[in-house]
Amino acid sequence: MGARIRDRAGSTAEMLEAFGDESLVAAALSFEAALARAQAAEGVIPAAHAALVAEVCEARFDIDDLAERAAHAGTLAIPLVALLRERIVQRAPDAAGAVHRGATSQDVADTALMLQAKAGMGLLMRDAKRLEVALAALARTHAATPMLARTLLQPAAPITFGLKAAQWRAGIMGAVARLNREAGLALVLQLGGPVGALGDMDGRGVAVAERVAETLGLAGSAAPWHARREAVAGLGAALAILTGAVAKVARDVALMAQGEVAEAFEPRVQGRGGSSAMAHKRNPAGCQIALSAAVRTPHLAATLMSAAPGAHERDLGGWQAEAPVLAELFQLAHGAVVAMADVAAGLQVDTVAMARNLAAADVGDDVGEAEALTRRLLEMDGA
Amino acid sequence: MGARIRDRAGSTAEMLEAFGDESLVAAALSFEAALARAQAAEGVIPAAHAALVAEVCEARFDIDDLAERAAHAGTLAIPLVALLRERIVQRAPDAAGAVHRGATSQDVADTALMLQAKAGMGLLMRDAKRLEVALAALARTHAATPMLARTLLQPAAPITFGLKAAQWRAGIMGAVARLNREAGLALVLQLGGPVGALGDMDGRGVAVAERVAETLGLAGSAAPWHARREAVAGLGAALAILTGAVAKVARDVALMAQGEVAEAFEPRVQGRGGSSAMAHKRNPAGCQIALSAAVRTPHLAATLMSAAPGAHERDLGGWQAEAPVLAELFQLAHGAVVAMADVAAGLQVDTVAMARNLAAADVGDDVGEAEALTRRLLEMDGA
Amino acid sequence: MGARIRDRAGSTAEMLEAFGDESLVAAALSFEAALARAQAAEGVIPAAHAALVAEVCEARFDIDDLAERAAHAGTLAIPLVALLRERIVQRAPDAAGAVHRGATSQDVADTALMLQAKAGMGLLMRDAKRLEVALAALARTHAATPMLARTLLQPAAPITFGLKAAQWRAGIMGAVARLNREAGLALVLQLGGPVGALGDMDGRGVAVAERVAETLGLAGSAAPWHARREAVAGLGAALAILTGAVAKVARDVALMAQGEVAEAFEPRVQGRGGSSAMAHKRNPAGCQIALSAAVRTPHLAATLMSAAPGAHERDLGGWQAEAPVLAELFQLAHGAVVAMADVAAGLQVDTVAMARNLAAADVGDDVGEAEALTRRLLEMDGA
Amino acid sequence: MGARIRDRAGSTAEMLEAFGDESLVAAALSFEAALARAQAAEGVIPAAHAALVAEVCEARFDIDDLAERAAHAGTLAIPLVALLRERIVQRAPDAAGAVHRGATSQDVADTALMLQAKAGMGLLMRDAKRLEVALAALARTHAATPMLARTLLQPAAPITFGLKAAQWRAGIMGAVARLNREAGLALVLQLGGPVGALGDMDGRGVAVAERVAETLGLAGSAAPWHARREAVAGLGAALAILTGAVAKVARDVALMAQGEVAEAFEPRVQGRGGSSAMAHKRNPAGCQIALSAAVRTPHLAATLMSAAPGAHERDLGGWQAEAPVLAELFQLAHGAVVAMADVAAGLQVDTVAMARNLAAADVGDDVGEAEALTRRLLEMDGA
Repeated sequence: MGARIRDRAGSTAEMLEAFGDESLVAAALSFEAALARAQAAEGVIPAAHAALVAEVCEARFDIDDLAERAAHAGTLAIPLVALLRERIVQRAPDAAGAVHRGATSQDVADTALMLQAKAGMGLLMRDAKRLEVALAALARTHAATPMLARTLLQPAAPITFGLKAAQWRAGIMGAVARLNREAGLALVLQLGGPVGALGDMDGRGVAVAERVAETLGLAGSAAPWHARREAVAGLGAALAILTGAVAKVARDVALMAQGEVAEAFEPRVQGRGGSSAMAHKRNPAGCQIALSAAVRTPHLAATLMSAAPGAHERDLGGWQAEAPVLAELFQLAHGAVVAMADVAAGLQVDTVAMARNLAAADVGDDVGEAEALTRRLLEMDGA
Repeated sequence: MGARIRDRAGSTAEMLEAFGDESLVAAALSFEAALARAQAAEGVIPAAHAALVAEVCEARFDIDDLAERAAHAGTLAIPLVALLRERIVQRAPDAAGAVHRGATSQDVADTALMLQAKAGMGLLMRDAKRLEVALAALARTHAATPMLARTLLQPAAPITFGLKAAQWRAGIMGAVARLNREAGLALVLQLGGPVGALGDMDGRGVAVAERVAETLGLAGSAAPWHARREAVAGLGAALAILTGAVAKVARDVALMAQGEVAEAFEPRVQGRGGSSAMAHKRNPAGCQIALSAAVRTPHLAATLMSAAPGAHERDLGGWQAEAPVLAELFQLAHGAVVAMADVAAGLQVDTVAMARNLAAADVGDDVGEAEALTRRLLEMDGA
Repeated sequence: MGARIRDRAGSTAEMLEAFGDESLVAAALSFEAALARAQAAEGVIPAAHAALVAEVCEARFDIDDLAERAAHAGTLAIPLVALLRERIVQRAPDAAGAVHRGATSQDVADTALMLQAKAGMGLLMRDAKRLEVALAALARTHAATPMLARTLLQPAAPITFGLKAAQWRAGIMGAVARLNREAGLALVLQLGGPVGALGDMDGRGVAVAERVAETLGLAGSAAPWHARREAVAGLGAALAILTGAVAKVARDVALMAQGEVAEAFEPRVQGRGGSSAMAHKRNPAGCQIALSAAVRTPHLAATLMSAAPGAHERDLGGWQAEAPVLAELFQLAHGAVVAMADVAAGLQVDTVAMARNLAAADVGDDVGEAEALTRRLLEMDGA
Repeated sequence: MGARIRDRAGSTAEMLEAFGDESLVAAALSFEAALARAQAAEGVIPAAHAALVAEVCEARFDIDDLAERAAHAGTLAIPLVALLRERIVQRAPDAAGAVHRGATSQDVADTALMLQAKAGMGLLMRDAKRLEVALAALARTHAATPMLARTLLQPAAPITFGLKAAQWRAGIMGAVARLNREAGLALVLQLGGPVGALGDMDGRGVAVAERVAETLGLAGSAAPWHARREAVAGLGAALAILTGAVAKVARDVALMAQGEVAEAFEPRVQGRGGSSAMAHKRNPAGCQIALSAAVRTPHLAATLMSAAPGAHERDLGGWQAEAPVLAELFQLAHGAVVAMADVAAGLQVDTVAMARNLAAADVGDDVGEAEALTRRLLEMDGA
């Protein structure tokens, strides 16, 4: 009942899974287990109860059933916690209160989202590195390869292809650095209870939160961030900006791959980039993924910004819009990064065509300080 | 491997299915079958070949496998047509050319999308009608019920609740009328072949297209619209505007349901609107769905507008962004409409609280021409 | 103290003026004058008072002073009405109540905005017609001129340039038709008084509104639309979609004007499209305006959608965001339309280059039913 | 001919001026003067020529005339440099080549924009500090003042108003920190010449750029960033996120100021927040500015992201969309910050009403660790 065909057209199987139902439920359960253990360690609940909570959190759930229950209840936490309590009660009725104690639905939802985002960051950084390395290689190889620069889509003056590639890479590295900064601010445990005051924790709320954060591998914070959403918006913006930096490479490669220009081409991959109607075609299928992602991601990032200034201690509407949108941002960004990492690693560069187009433009051959700038860009970022 | 939990939180099972994988593949297959039959009727291919094409189009496919193949190829049509050809070749090798003849991937994709949209319109209109009827009933019942109007969130002057409800309804009816107009322009067959010139159709392309459109229950057009995307953008805008009109009702209901105001409440539904932490709470879960949708839909509609001005005869990136975004617009709009239809049908109105709040504001009791305006609004739209 | 240089880069002097301060104040004054006269005709105020109101509405005001006062008050109507009352009181103290009677700030603001929009529509339609005519001429002239179609920015198959131009025109005509429809729904008088109930009008509110609408040349409505904003959002969407349809032409022309493609060029205009650094350049300055507008307009249209579902009888924040955004939409749309009308009217087409690029692509010369489709497109829209 | 009334409704006179025509031209002239001086210092042009360039850059220009010329030429730099050359030629014909040498229009435009942004940052940071200080004071004063927390707009459980204020402040401080980081990355000299290769600088381009950056008080960079726009998008995102954090305060204050809630009110300011129709009203005029800004800024930030992935060495359309949009972001952000700094500094808090609403909700009086969290938030950020 999903939309796998369209989802996979713009993202990777890995990232779809990182934000899929199974990982969502697993993250929610790991939160509940970690919470119970932390509360036991701080003396808020008995250790035996915590162990039992952790045990039932190992269970598997029927996703479609859970989705229907969550849709009806208005939040995943309610049916999930109810199902956990059922199982606990069968074993030890007096332990029922030990699950989800002091927590609220948003604590589960926000923390689970950030656990998914953490997995997503791992995938993104891995493949962004591949893309950077491939672009650095292009920049070094072609530091002195003259080509025609175009401004406003018109022939302008000579540069080198190495400078172009080094600039592509610099844009991506800047975007990756921003994303890492924003992830550092956003991948934070949310634990505040119903209104963010850490009630029902026997005054040990801050200590409990520190333990939960450590267990889950998330950062802690001075206070819950349930109604302070600027870090989520910042993370979304960084994902969109990275997608844009990747799409910049795709834009240029696609223009260079035009039939009349013919300066660079995506690598040939069996079964990729074909046409259902024209056998001769070799479509820039990698660039397509990146450019399509970059059409969508700015609007998704803006959605998170629109959602941010919510009402009081938990918004009605804005907050609920965040999770699916952040998931899409990770998915589209990863689709773009992976596609262009492959394109960059196998890019077929036609330096003869570059020379021919440059000569035809009749703009001389002075590439200015292009080589030196290429080196500076590569050095600066440690390539 | 889907994201059913988050998708269902904002939409309905029906609409998710209308834009799901199975319906996508079914729509694509119905296009291929209709195309072959139309070409046979126009003498472009033998009738026996068309019958065989139609027969293999009855087959079922492994969705996950198809999704992977489509992602690799860059479009669904390539693996789907290849699989159809395989099956045809097993039966009649010389009929292989009869499938997808004169068509291109975009013909399949756009037409399938519009077939899905047609199903989506049916669902939306059905439930929008429920919402309208419920609001009209509220308007009639409370045409003379005085309440405090608020402007800039401050107490202003008296109106009647009937006028408020009639205005809600008028907004939704205006949005529904726009959506119907836009759907009439967008739910059009796309058939143009590789570049929109209807080549490889023995000069019968226009006639073939008319037959295909009729078979599929889509409108025909003077010419293919492969590179003319303003109707898709118009449809998306209409869906977002409808969602906004629905969210207007949700905004007001949620404000009226505040503890200190207490003038109207969502109907009590077992297991809905609860809190995982606070047993006393009665959350406006229906309003939440509508308001959350309305945070997202403007940005999705804008995505379609950003995608529209594509390059040449088929864009690289923009076009590919449309289908998943249009699907989300239908899904969020339907989630909002259904949620608020239920809310409106069961709205609990506290006229005593209305009178109390009005009196407390000390702004008199002159409701001006509120009753007459209520009647005018109801009459105008034929309630 | 304005931003004339940047504003003029994207719009026309005419449209900037249509939404400028002077026309805003003039529109607000014409509303107040028409209201007083209508109230006199309906016996709500004395005719002599109405005449005096109309007289003081002829006055001129210091815009900078008014802007500061309006910013302080939070709305233009408050200082404007206060200044009118001052002048009336000097002449006839008992007539002071005759100005702005039964009206509220939003009545002035919305009606003035729609009067500006009406002027804007006149400019837009005038120049959209020029653009359509120029594209129809291109389509007729080149109905049989073969050229290479490109899909996904790759060489695809032959079409004719006439078909391309006819499709451009069809897209614009569709967008113009939508804009006219939406303007018909949006260019409506707003008159509802403080809360939209037409209080303080002696029960003659509906009749007064009909008279005011007729005087101002706006449509009337069954009831005030102060809190029903979907028509404003619809108008904004139509403006953005039109801009996109115009930018589609610009996208293609700019790609055709690339040095290596060289199939079409903007007309040479003295002093336009030059470079501050490269004397040989001939930049597509008209396409630049249209493409830049189309980057911005989807987001502006979405802003109006985000603003629409406001709170109660007048929103705090959303409503106030509309007027400057709608003004920008008109300004950018007009900048795009005028720029591309000039480009289309003077487009330099190189059919030899088209033939050369087509031959180089080695995709044959079968243009399918391109000529027939061109004729169908031209006939359908009455060219 | 401007739109002063509408512009001033959402921003401040100061920020409108910072991005106005005069400051734009002044910034462009300071770039040209600094460039000539740096080139003289590096021996690229004679010192006497540089002195003459600097002298003519002191001149004043007719803004309206310049706006028309710039609109015609497609860029401000062309007419501006032409006018400078005219004046130089009158004094020393052989010095004509000394102005704008090695530079291109984008160098002027980007650098001037960043000089305006630098001035804008000064204004923003000054007033954000005021806002932070006022919120810190509220947090300290009310660290132990109980009030009702609301989630999903429903009564939830007790917190303290101090915690609410401390969270507001933390959100703003996080957003301010992000903005400072992004400004550090974006406020960078752009100097690359026609294609970013620093041609026509006698190989001294890098050295010249360092001198120009120092003179203008901008950061330098390893290489020109003409086609690398992620820092501009990052700056825009940070401005939108800050506006959202400010609007969060406005959202809550406006909800608390509702007649039935009555827990906090904007300070009374003579002539502000009135109604043109209802004398009793006290509208939250400051909140209105912030909330209205936050409706618009997400879409403006997204515009910059959409514009970022441009074609080759200077985009056609995307790049040209940036400057007016970034200016609006600064203007709206400053309008919001100043408005809410005033609101926060003079907020009238009714602790009796808070207590009454809390008691009426019947949710007990346990504020959990609210006070401790308030202190942690204040300490962490050094209040």
